[in-house]
Amino acid sequence: MSAAQRSWWGWGLADHAVPAAEVEAMAPLVSQSLGCEVQRREPATLASLQLREPRIAAPHSLSEICSVEVEDRAGHSYGKSFRDVVRGFRGEFPNPPDAVARPRNEAELVSLLDWCGSEGIAAIPYGAGSSVVGGVESGGEWDEQFNGVVSIDLVHLDRVVEVDHESRAALIQAGATGPRLEDQLRPHGLTLRHYPQSFEFSTLGGWIATRSGGHYATGRTHIEDFVESTRMITPRGPMESRRLPGSGAGPSPDRLVAGSEGILGVISEAWMRLQDRPAHKATAAIPFDSFASGVAAARRLAQSSLWPTNCRLLDPGEAAANAGGAGEAILVLGFESAHEPVDADIRAALEICADSGGDVSAGARISGPPGSGSAGETSDAQSASAPHPAESWRSAFLRAPYLRDAMVSLGCIAETFETAVTWDRFDELHQEVTRTAADSLARVCGGGTLTCRFTHVYPDGVAPYFTVLAPSRHGEQLAMWDEVKAAVSEAIFETGGTITHHHAVGRDHRGVYDRQRPDLFAEALGAAKSTLDPDGILNPGVLIDPRRP
Amino acid sequence: MSAAQRSWWGWGLADHAVPAAEVEAMAPLVSQSLGCEVQRREPATLASLQLREPRIAAPHSLSEICSVEVEDRAGHSYGKSFRDVVRGFRGEFPNPPDAVARPRNEAELVSLLDWCGSEGIAAIPYGAGSSVVGGVESGGEWDEQFNGVVSIDLVHLDRVVEVDHESRAALIQAGATGPRLEDQLRPHGLTLRHYPQSFEFSTLGGWIATRSGGHYATGRTHIEDFVESTRMITPRGPMESRRLPGSGAGPSPDRLVAGSEGILGVISEAWMRLQDRPAHKATAAIPFDSFASGVAAARRLAQSSLWPTNCRLLDPGEAAANAGGAGEAILVLGFESAHEPVDADIRAALEICADSGGDVSAGARISGPPGSGSAGETSDAQSASAPHPAESWRSAFLRAPYLRDAMVSLGCIAETFETAVTWDRFDELHQEVTRTAADSLARVCGGGTLTCRFTHVYPDGVAPYFTVLAPSRHGEQLAMWDEVKAAVSEAIFETGGTITHHHAVGRDHRGVYDRQRPDLFAEALGAAKSTLDPDGILNPGVLIDPRRP
Repeated sequence: MSAAQRSWWGWGLADHAVPAAEVEAMAPLVSQSLGCEVQRREPATLASLQLREPRIAAPHSLSEICSVEVEDRAGHSYGKSFRDVVRGFRGEFPNPPDAVARPRNEAELVSLLDWCGSEGIAAIPYGAGSSVVGGVESGGEWDEQFNGVVSIDLVHLDRVVEVDHESRAALIQAGATGPRLEDQLRPHGLTLRHYPQSFEFSTLGGWIATRSGGHYATGRTHIEDFVESTRMITPRGPMESRRLPGSGAGPSPDRLVAGSEGILGVISEAWMRLQDRPAHKATAAIPFDSFASGVAAARRLAQSSLWPTNCRLLDPGEAAANAGGAGEAILVLGFESAHEPVDADIRAALEICADSGGDVSAGARISGPPGSGSAGETSDAQSASAPHPAESWRSAFLRAPYLRDAMVSLGCIAETFETAVTWDRFDELHQEVTRTAADSLARVCGGGTLTCRFTHVYPDGVAPYFTVLAPSRHGEQLAMWDEVKAAVSEAIFETGGTITHHHAVGRDHRGVYDRQRPDLFAEALGAAKSTLDPDGILNPGVLIDPRRP
Repeated sequence: MSAAQRSWWGWGLADHAVPAAEVEAMAPLVSQSLGCEVQRREPATLASLQLREPRIAAPHSLSEICSVEVEDRAGHSYGKSFRDVVRGFRGEFPNPPDAVARPRNEAELVSLLDWCGSEGIAAIPYGAGSSVVGGVESGGEWDEQFNGVVSIDLVHLDRVVEVDHESRAALIQAGATGPRLEDQLRPHGLTLRHYPQSFEFSTLGGWIATRSGGHYATGRTHIEDFVESTRMITPRGPMESRRLPGSGAGPSPDRLVAGSEGILGVISEAWMRLQDRPAHKATAAIPFDSFASGVAAARRLAQSSLWPTNCRLLDPGEAAANAGGAGEAILVLGFESAHEPVDADIRAALEICADSGGDVSAGARISGPPGSGSAGETSDAQSASAPHPAESWRSAFLRAPYLRDAMVSLGCIAETFETAVTWDRFDELHQEVTRTAADSLARVCGGGTLTCRFTHVYPDGVAPYFTVLAPSRHGEQLAMWDEVKAAVSEAIFETGGTITHHHAVGRDHRGVYDRQRPDLFAEALGAAKSTLDPDGILNPGVLIDPRRP
């Protein structure tokens, strides 16, 4: 993936963006559904950007890997949240990084941190830049404490270094994106099988640093469950844990690295637990008359020991928008296994769904390895040629961030937020978030919609994911969204949720995170940071307050 | 369980110890099998103990919960490793705690820490005292830094405080032993289902503090996988995490608590994820001609996605001693589920075993819920009245620590050690540990045996557990064992293992642990400790060097 293909202001690849003509065609529909006037505008052009002059100059030995080009500096100023895209779209870059460094090896990474430490330069680790929480944002209140800011982009550290077939594990460099690492694992018949929505535009290091949530709806949901060992370059040197399948030797070093969001060091590589490629799959999409009965089914499935791979409950709004629903909630269910047929599992799951009021008449789509009896098997009620709701949903899922950019160009609000909460409090959280969103959207935006789906389910709780679409106006989108976001974040906090299940904290979630995490833990984490990053140069403002000595 | 029933020097309950007559009867067999003279001696008596006078006196407000009785102080001087039992047996208590405190509530726990902090008294958190790594040991090189030592026994904090049926979770006080908490959960139809070998004599708080390994051979093997939130009383106050089914908000606070072994605070309670009681079970014991083919089967099972509950490979020595084996290795396999039949799972597992050279002719013993078709089903080749090898093994498992005490009274060496290693290095580790043990046992003890079993298997590795039986002499057991232990620990370290998979680090494993964990992580952990325990009073000598300000 060459950097040139990436959009410098929007999601993903520039040529995958929704074409202008298509956005124009969307406009009347958006206008009608949100009940507001919309007008498409063009994004700022690179040529129009007037970035602040770089405040620092890389030493000769590093100048070759440090870029001060406008596209690099603008493209590394933000992540890819709605706030980021709006600012990029408008060409607002008051605090670009002074340089974008792309180390080609660990030695250069070490030299970069040495330079930053000695010169009082903030160092922001950058994977593939798809943070949606201000995790890679350059500048802010902390900026004046530093003489400059360098974004350290790990794009060149993208290799699978070693594969251990016997232990089914691989040593992978942190800058490898999902496709890059899967491409290198495929010839070995192995897969990491971690598929966050950002799969194409996020990296192993970013996943570990943010405790990314991946493919699995149950069981091992977060990337850290697949981490065997980590190597992190801190300003004081490398911190590398031993490869172990399990250990009880003190607190896990890897669990301090996981979720550290770049404030303790730059993850350079990790040994990851891999899997055989799945040969058996089964999917089903089960309509439920009410969201509540779908919730009950999801809970029973989560507590059933069936461990479905996918268990995404879409509320009626999500189902209508993404899976061809017509007023009902839809549970998108999936099972997969490399070795064992999953027919019995999905049948047991369908029984649970039926028992909870789901309509299982469409049956399941089951496939096995080529040549097996179950290959291509579908139930009678299911036409093999019709797009399966589970597949409609998947394609909409990957397309969603591009559509968000289109909504930005129409002057609307389109954003998501997510949480997790124990089952006993889910109803209250859902009601309170829904009510709060409705209130604030009506007050601030004059309307809008909130929809909900489940991304992950646990025996003891659930991770609901919310999507907001709302009318706004060019120039007012950020202020409006900030107000709505603050209100729903408060509702999440008050009803027992976490400010993030898998998007991370970054700079955007600090307010609620600071109330959610134990104060003494923040102090302990701060002490750990002072030890590993004594000059306080790493990703200032993330997780804890920046403290320069 | 009253404290009076516990043996003050040996394992478990005093009246469950192997009776003297039985030990006498064992003597000739032990003598023959180890090739040495053995002579049974009597343990020291409580009346014979001359303990150092307490160096401190509890303030009036705490005197009611602080005991200075000989039995309490002797009984809290050590854990229950071979080293501990030998010293207790001999009546060697040079460094007893000056007092044993038993707080009845959290307020008293806070007061105790305040007292220790203000008076420079070391505070050693004590669950049920079955540490086998010097985790609760009073005294040592660090002793002179303190004015005294208090063992803080959480025996009275043993309640299940709240049960959340909907989320299938419970708030449980840290001092509850396995039976205590299961007794309170049973009326709710729920179970934690965490069964370390020490189940009866260890507590929830101890499990979390040491990252205990439990019932499950695969998947969620360690107690921290079942932790929803923790509350830990530090000298600076309580540190409590939010109840969440999953979260990506920074590094997990619970994962700093898990494995902290009492150096950061005293865990007072935790919300734990529970399960429905299993209704479906299946077990099988599969002989393998060679240990190597059993290893291959275990690895394939671990990588099969079948997730057996039990997958204990016993080498020929273990199989002969514990499961009626006659020269073959035996794989003890188990599946269980609350909701779904496990027949298909164990049949798939048996196929894998057969394919790897296992003798599956005995079939599986499968049971379902009462009234179900599969209740009590056994294969034809299996007599329902004969003790099943899987059950022989379980009963031997629970009896083992008592037998170790009997071996101590005969002047022999009987101890276990354990590790985990990735599959690619297992053969080398096993060979090197076996060779090293044979060499050092021959040199130091003039003989002895080493056997191996697997306690847990992972897709990427295995946790082997070793048992040593060796000739020795009263008075020389410790020096001999220390030399053997040092040699095998070095072999584990050199071949890529962890110094502990689930026994913890304590004081005994510090030497290798200090080389195994990243230096910078130890510094970060030390900084966290200085933050939470500024006076450095908590469990000095464990995990990191004691540092009094």
